[in-house]
Amino acid sequence: MTYCVGIQVNDGLVFASDTRTSAGVDDVRTHNKMHVLEFPGERVLITLSAGNLATTQAILAQVRRDLDDAQRSVNLRTARSMYDAAEYLGSVSTRTQKETAAQSQYTGADLRVTLILGGQIHGEAPALYLIYPEGNCIASSPETPYLQVGESKYGKPILDRIIRPDVSLEDAARCALVSIDSTMKSNLSVGPPLDLAIVRRDELAVAHKLRLDLDTPYFAGFREAWGRQIAEALRNLPKFDWELPRR
Amino acid sequence: MTYCVGIQVNDGLVFASDTRTSAGVDDVRTHNKMHVLEFPGERVLITLSAGNLATTQAILAQVRRDLDDAQRSVNLRTARSMYDAAEYLGSVSTRTQKETAAQSQYTGADLRVTLILGGQIHGEAPALYLIYPEGNCIASSPETPYLQVGESKYGKPILDRIIRPDVSLEDAARCALVSIDSTMKSNLSVGPPLDLAIVRRDELAVAHKLRLDLDTPYFAGFREAWGRQIAEALRNLPKFDWELPRR
Repeated sequence: MTYCVGIQVNDGLVFASDTRTSAGVDDVRTHNKMHVLEFPGERVLITLSAGNLATTQAILAQVRRDLDDAQRSVNLRTARSMYDAAEYLGSVSTRTQKETAAQSQYTGADLRVTLILGGQIHGEAPALYLIYPEGNCIASSPETPYLQVGESKYGKPILDRIIRPDVSLEDAARCALVSIDSTMKSNLSVGPPLDLAIVRRDELAVAHKLRLDLDTPYFAGFREAWGRQIAEALRNLPKFDWELPRR
Repeated sequence: MTYCVGIQVNDGLVFASDTRTSAGVDDVRTHNKMHVLEFPGERVLITLSAGNLATTQAILAQVRRDLDDAQRSVNLRTARSMYDAAEYLGSVSTRTQKETAAQSQYTGADLRVTLILGGQIHGEAPALYLIYPEGNCIASSPETPYLQVGESKYGKPILDRIIRPDVSLEDAARCALVSIDSTMKSNLSVGPPLDLAIVRRDELAVAHKLRLDLDTPYFAGFREAWGRQIAEALRNLPKFDWELPRR
């Protein structure tokens, strides 16, 4: 399994992903699930992926081949809008899934991939899309400012409590890290290191990209601080009436 | 769906449940999922349930019929140990599921029920069991001091961070409320009011039983305090290096 989250706030976009890949508990590996395509000043696009790893890598390989193909009407460099880019990526995804299914004699494997694509193209606002295995997509919005793929339930409550369009990019990034950290604590199929990227509105480049492992000093301090504060917050909750001193 | 959690700490047991029942989004109702059987000084048993509501009610009806049946070798009043009580409840559950399946001409309905049974019988330590739809069960333990049924993922991280055997019953109860509150915020199939029960070790009776709705003063203040403290905790997390004043 996997857990990735993309967040859109007024100031830009945040992307975060784990790196654990498992084909059963006895076949666990580490793979990057965040891929950045950057043409500084022109466009920046980031993908996050969950699902079949071989399908994901085949999709990304096709995306790279298409970038070098001057004949192609659309690729991630020439797509006129983020929506066109999301539609293109969805079509590569479905084609890849179909081709693998057609050439395989095994019907049991789940070949599906769910993607997040976010970024900004010069002249357009930043945008964030969730691309379903069916190739279609939904956009984030002020009412739904984040999109998740993979093991999304453990880390959803903190996003629902915190993420609003006026949250700063850095607070949104910290919320994404809490969301993934909570998921890692409760589910073995999501694991470190984490990748974090921040794209500021209208910069058309990646502002910050970090890889955070459990022993990375910032992330070690971050996890300690969150754990300690949560325990304090719980101790400070209102007492039940039978705990209060009798009047 | 449903969300219920039972917690065992050194001082006793905590039980918490939501009350939302849904057979599709257009058929949403409120049903009690916590049932208490109390023979003060002798034994106290509490069940929580998730799954098919008709099966649940049939199981509980059979449990009540068996209580009045002097001929029966085992019922919840005569079971010699909590394990025997859990085995008995599992056997009632599987028999009920099988009978409904046998008499029905429809094969699509999911008739399964998962139960939590906890409590204490005089002369025995408190115990907590999760009873699977298959009728077998697992016990809580110092390493796994809580058991969940239903929509368990949203509310798991807070339990993993807080619950240890030496936590007080009241803190464990507050943790259970946070766990359900977070689940309600992120999932429409879990909803208020909540039921909360506390059983102190060796009291052989229910110490406290509360029903908490969104407008119950204690719970309204509780939710406000938690939301505020979580937002503060997030603001107090370590800054990224680019946010720090330059030296």
